[in-house]
Parts: sequence; structure tokens; C-alpha cells
Amino acid sequence: MQYSEMSKEDLLALKQELDAQYAEAKGKGLKLDMSRGKPSAMQLDVSLGLMDVINSSSRLAASDGTDCRNYGMLEGIPEAKKLMADIMGTTPEHVIIYGNSSLNIMYDQVSRAYSHGILGNTPWCRLDKIKFLCPVPGYDRHFAITEYFGIEMIPVPMSQDGPDMDIVEQYVNQDESVKGIWCVPKYSNPQGFTYSDETVRRFAALKPAAKDFRIFWDNAYAIHHLYDDRQDEILDIISECEKAGNPDIVFEFASTSKISFPGSGIAALAASAANLDEIRRQLTLQTIGHDKLNQLRHVRYFQDINGLKIHMKKHAQQMRPKFEAVLNVLDKELSGLGIGSWNAPRGGYFISFDAMEGCAKAIVAKCKEAGVTLTKAGATFPYGNDPKDSNIRIAPSFPTPEEMAQASDLFVLCVKLVSIEKILETKYA
Amino acid sequence: MQYSEMSKEDLLALKQELDAQYAEAKGKGLKLDMSRGKPSAMQLDVSLGLMDVINSSSRLAASDGTDCRNYGMLEGIPEAKKLMADIMGTTPEHVIIYGNSSLNIMYDQVSRAYSHGILGNTPWCRLDKIKFLCPVPGYDRHFAITEYFGIEMIPVPMSQDGPDMDIVEQYVNQDESVKGIWCVPKYSNPQGFTYSDETVRRFAALKPAAKDFRIFWDNAYAIHHLYDDRQDEILDIISECEKAGNPDIVFEFASTSKISFPGSGIAALAASAANLDEIRRQLTLQTIGHDKLNQLRHVRYFQDINGLKIHMKKHAQQMRPKFEAVLNVLDKELSGLGIGSWNAPRGGYFISFDAMEGCAKAIVAKCKEAGVTLTKAGATFPYGNDPKDSNIRIAPSFPTPEEMAQASDLFVLCVKLVSIEKILETKYA
Repeated sequence: MQYSEMSKEDLLALKQELDAQYAEAKGKGLKLDMSRGKPSAMQLDVSLGLMDVINSSSRLAASDGTDCRNYGMLEGIPEAKKLMADIMGTTPEHVIIYGNSSLNIMYDQVSRAYSHGILGNTPWCRLDKIKFLCPVPGYDRHFAITEYFGIEMIPVPMSQDGPDMDIVEQYVNQDESVKGIWCVPKYSNPQGFTYSDETVRRFAALKPAAKDFRIFWDNAYAIHHLYDDRQDEILDIISECEKAGNPDIVFEFASTSKISFPGSGIAALAASAANLDEIRRQLTLQTIGHDKLNQLRHVRYFQDINGLKIHMKKHAQQMRPKFEAVLNVLDKELSGLGIGSWNAPRGGYFISFDAMEGCAKAIVAKCKEAGVTLTKAGATFPYGNDPKDSNIRIAPSFPTPEEMAQASDLFVLCVKLVSIEKILETKYA
Repeated sequence: MQYSEMSKEDLLALKQELDAQYAEAKGKGLKLDMSRGKPSAMQLDVSLGLMDVINSSSRLAASDGTDCRNYGMLEGIPEAKKLMADIMGTTPEHVIIYGNSSLNIMYDQVSRAYSHGILGNTPWCRLDKIKFLCPVPGYDRHFAITEYFGIEMIPVPMSQDGPDMDIVEQYVNQDESVKGIWCVPKYSNPQGFTYSDETVRRFAALKPAAKDFRIFWDNAYAIHHLYDDRQDEILDIISECEKAGNPDIVFEFASTSKISFPGSGIAALAASAANLDEIRRQLTLQTIGHDKLNQLRHVRYFQDINGLKIHMKKHAQQMRPKFEAVLNVLDKELSGLGIGSWNAPRGGYFISFDAMEGCAKAIVAKCKEAGVTLTKAGATFPYGNDPKDSNIRIAPSFPTPEEMAQASDLFVLCVKLVSIEKILETKYA
């Protein structure tokens, strides 16, 4: 029976029971963190071989003869470009290899647009108003970058197929101050949705009012599947934009942060020739080049996209039981109660939970009080403001499956309690 | 006898002889590059052990227990801070570890000052005019950053003791639009001069008209000595600024680019607590953190400052013969002719040569024609404009000592020829 259909007496009785359970749970002294998409130590072990693949006896030269120990090759070694292109589903000539952080590339793209403009357009710092569209729920660190640069963020609702493209088209094609949109197109953060072919094609076919509008296409989970037999696929945005006569409107980002080691991986940007030419001119001023030995380490270890696919299955083996632990508890405990909805993603790092309106903050606080840390409620919205106070991001990667089951038990308990309180307060007050 | 005192006939006779030598040299088909401060392959071999120091069997945790394979520790691991602090002669609490490129840190410092301002002051992009002082000759990549941000560059003459501090004080203490100065305080690029204690103290005691004035102290060659017995020392700018009541006026930079591997080293920033607090707030938006495994690799390999000193002696063994090869030829061939002056540095990567006025471009072109590439004439000045067309930067690191001797023979030949032409043109025209 849905909680909202229960009588006041039944709700109060249930609440008493759940309060007792909560008191007991609190007594257990849990200390679990489901707040960030951080791999577990066991998952990091999957990539340990990366530490052995090159040493002082190795030929430390790239395929084109470049000594990876010295200056040079600002754009990265050819085989690293090929590997990262394959991850993104594009071709190496569209790719520049950066350092260890794709977030850093995104920041730099916004920062340079702000200080110098894009392809001859007015620098954003000279304009009164700059806006970005932000599909919600979304990734807090995207929003943090645009907020830092004083860019107004406009939420756009997400669906299973991606952002609401009617709204996206309306803003992008009519408002010249809309300069960008943040996208996690595959296994989106936090919902795990993958943009449909139609969504990708509508992105490629945008007719932006602003010449310097760019899609910030953060392909963070391109090969991060949870299952062998059920995998999402996505169209290549770069070639779709080319086909649509819009080659310059997209910047694509990827990294091996959740493939090899977070912080010690390699990151890449993919874009059109015109965009890359401009970026190269600036990059040569900004850095002496990125770590080519680490690029070499990665390509020697993974070899090619097939090596990567085999590797990602090992990650999936670690991740799947954790996702299933959460989903099993949610299904068993919350189905049919009408107090929350969630998704069962096929990849990525998160489960997105939507509580009853006005309950997310209270649920997160109640979990915290009993030792389970969740991502801050609101974090998945621009300015940390979820207008419905409903969305909660669950990150199952760091704890063990057993800990995830424990944490989920507490989570559903808190969802039930907070929901009952909300119903009592609104319906029976 | 000085060339300028020779008769026209004698000069013409000498020119004929030198022309013949030049024609012969051209026939040799030399292909040597003295243009960049790039280590040779043999020099890179000195650091090969770095490739073996951590592997899959190693404990990949920092001294504080941080798993270096995962996210976290935005500022770098404690032992890396200590190592980089020791290189700069400061203490770890003043240090943030970055990625592989100190140039990238400098760029980011300018970029953030431009977009967001420093410690609450107006962002530079909102000001009509921003100026930087540029001790000359100096480092072209510094000048390239300030030029990219539209910052007006004002040359300040260098001496053996550092920049002309009367001029520096006059500008900095009186002109609010002067926001920075580029310094390579030790074994300066290209002259190899080291700032005297008085110079450092006068820097620390500046009373800038602009609250957001900063000294950009690029301590690139802090431990890059050529000799065991003759080494320059420099005062610690961070503590000198503290003592002078000016803790916030300096950003110091260093890297292991020319200690371990260029492009695969680690880089660091040192600054006051107030500066670091502001930088941390932005850095957390910009990146997921830097490569801690590479930090670990460096600290495990070098251990401490003593390990570094022993290591740098190996570099010196490679570099010294190359410097001496150049200096021997210059001394033997050009002394007393009055057509050039140069320095004999005790460290760093360069020899600075000052030709007769109006001769540098022609000398560089003449060398190029015979197969020896030098740094572009003018590169050591802002906007690539050496008003006297006199300074030439010689980078002896990449070729072998034998090649350096060959290249130097050609260089002095070109200096002689171009000087004679200049004298004939100006005195006997």
C-alpha cells in the first residue's frame, strides 16, 4: 500500500516501529561513504599491472620515435591519441591528449573562452551576461566551474533519452547569451541515462544564436559498462556535428580516471580542426607539454580498445555487486510505497534516487546522523539548489557490497521515516 | 686588435679569408640545434632509475597513508611538498604540488588573476591597463604568457646582481598598473646571473602601488649547478618577504623538469598562507588533483635534498663539458676583438652572448644557413624585440660536447663575418 493512502494511525504505528529500527541502526556505529564516485582499493588493484609495464629497460619512445622522456609532442603521442579516440568513438586527428584530469580540460576551455573568446568571438568576460544550460540532475563539479566564472545556469530537465531537447533548442537557437551546455551523454551522472540517437542528432543539428556556443560533452563513462550483455551505445557526436554542418559546436572530454588510476590517468579533448588549431596556439603558451611517459604506460598496458574492453569487464565485476546490493534493497523495501523512484543503470558510477518532494535534505541528514554519508542533497543541481528537494545521488563504488547492503538498509529506513513525517505534516497536520 | 680599429683593407682581407672558411663550413652539412634548453638523451639516462622505483609490488601509499592511486590530496603528498620545498629553500607549508609543468602554474596564476583577481582585488580583465616588468634578456615563454593576456611588458635591464632595482622600485612603488615582474632569480635565463642578497631584499621590501602586485619568481634552476666547488646561492624570497612584512607579494615556481624528465616531472608553487588559501579554493574547482603516483615515484627515487644534490652532480658532469666547449671557443676566438661579450655561468642552461649592436639577427641567420639553429634573435626580449639587436641565447645542453665545439666554431665565424660587415657598413661606407 502506498504510504500516502495509509491512515494517520497506521502511519504513526509504522513510524514508531521504524524509529526503533533507526535507534538500533544508530547504535551500530556505521561509518560508510556513498558520497563520491571514487573507486575502491580492490578496484584499483585491477590496474596494478600498469605499474610494471614500462621500466628502465623499456624502449621509452613513442611509435613515431619521440623520446617520451624529453620535451616535445605537445598534443600527445600518436598511440595515446588513437586509444583515447577509440574510447570516445572518434578518430585521432580530432584528439589532443592532456594531463591527468578531464575536469581540468573543461575548466581551461571555459577559462580561455572567458579571457580570450572562442574563434574570434568576444571574450565572455567582455559580455554582460553568459548562460549555460544544465541538464538536471547533473554533475556538481560542472556546475562549480560555471558558477566560478559567474555564468548563469539554467536547469533543463533530463529524461531517459537525455535532456529535454525542445527546451534546449529553444534556448540555444534563440538566446545569444547561451554559450554552452554541460552534458554527460552516456551513463549520465547521476541517473545513468544514455542519450538516444535522436537526442544526439538534435544536439548536432542545433542552430545556435551564439556563434561561440559549445556543447561540453563530458564522455566520462564511455566504456564504463556494468554488464556484458546489456550495454548502452551512443552516436559519435563529433561526426554527427560534422554531418549536420556544425563541426565546431562541440568539445568532447574523456579520461582514464576510472579506467586506470584516478589522478594518475590520462585525459583528452576531442574537437574540430578549427577548434583544435586555436587550442594548440594557446596550449603552447600554457604548458611545456603533458606527461608522455604516462601516456606510453597507458598504451603499452591497454594496447588497444579491445584491451580496454577486457579491462573494463574487471571493473564491472567489482561494481556490479555493489549496484545490485543497493537496487535489491530499494526494490525489496520501497517498491509500491510511492515514496521514491530510482533507476537501474547499465553503467556509470551512480544511482539516482528521487524522494518525495521536500524530503531529500532530511533523508541525507538522517543517514549522516547514523553514520552513512551521501552526496549533499541539492548537489546535483546548479547552485546546490534542488527546487523540489527530491534528488539524492548514491555512489556505490567505494564501500564493499556488504557495506553497500548495510548502507542501503539504513537509507531505505531513513526514506521511510522522513516520508512518513512529511505525509503526517502535510496531510494530517 | 679590436675589429673596429682595423683598416678597411685589413677587414676586407680578413673577410675574404672568413668567407672561404664559411663556405667550407657550409659544405659540411651540419645539423645542430642550440635553440632550446633541452636535455640530451645521455642526460636523460641519468634519471632512468626513476622508472624502476615503484612497481606493482610497492606500497603505493604516501607517508600519511593516502593511497596514491586514488582521488584526493589536492595539494600533493606531504613528502613531495617537503622535497619541492627543499629545492626552493622554503618550508612545506608554503607549497602546493601541481602537475608536470611549472610554466602551466605560472600561466594559471596569470589567468586566474585576469579572470578573478587576486585576494579580492579587481580582476585584471576589468582594468584598462595592466603592466609587467620584464628583466631583459629573459625567458621567451614568460613573455609569451603576458603578451597573450594583453599585458604591457616593460623591459628592465639586468646586471650581474639581478634586475636594475632602482628602476624596479620606481615602477612598482609608483605605478598601480604594474601588477607583476618575471624573475629567474638563480642562474637566470639566459645570462646565468644570480640575484644578490641585496637584490632579493630589495624585492622583498618593495612597497607596491598595486595591492595585487606579485613577483613571479621562477626558481627554475635552483639546484642546477655546473660545478661542485663554485655554486651560487640565493636568499629564500618567501621568508625575506615575510620578514619585510610583505608575505603575499611573491609566487615562487619550481619543477623537476631538468632534474628528472622534462614533461614527466613534478612542479610546485610556493606562496604565503593567504595566497595558498585562495589558490586552493580555485584549484578544487579546476582539477581532481595531480598525479600522486608520479609524486611518489620522485620522492622514493630522490629520497631527500641530499639525494637530489648527488643526482644533480651527474647532470653537471654531462653539462659542464658542453658549456666549456662553447666558452673555450668564444675565449680563444673572440677575446679582445671587441665584437661580442658573454658570461661564464656557474649553472643553469644557457650562455648569453651580446654581439655588436644590430648584428644578432644576421648572426643567427648566418648560423642557420650553415646548419646550426640558435634561439631566434630577439626571443629574449618582450614581443621578440631586442632594441639593440644584440643578444643571442646559446643553449648547449642538447648536442654532444664535440658537436658543441663544431657549432661554436661556426658561431664565432658568423659573429666575425657579420661584425666585419657591420663595421664596413657603418664606419667605411
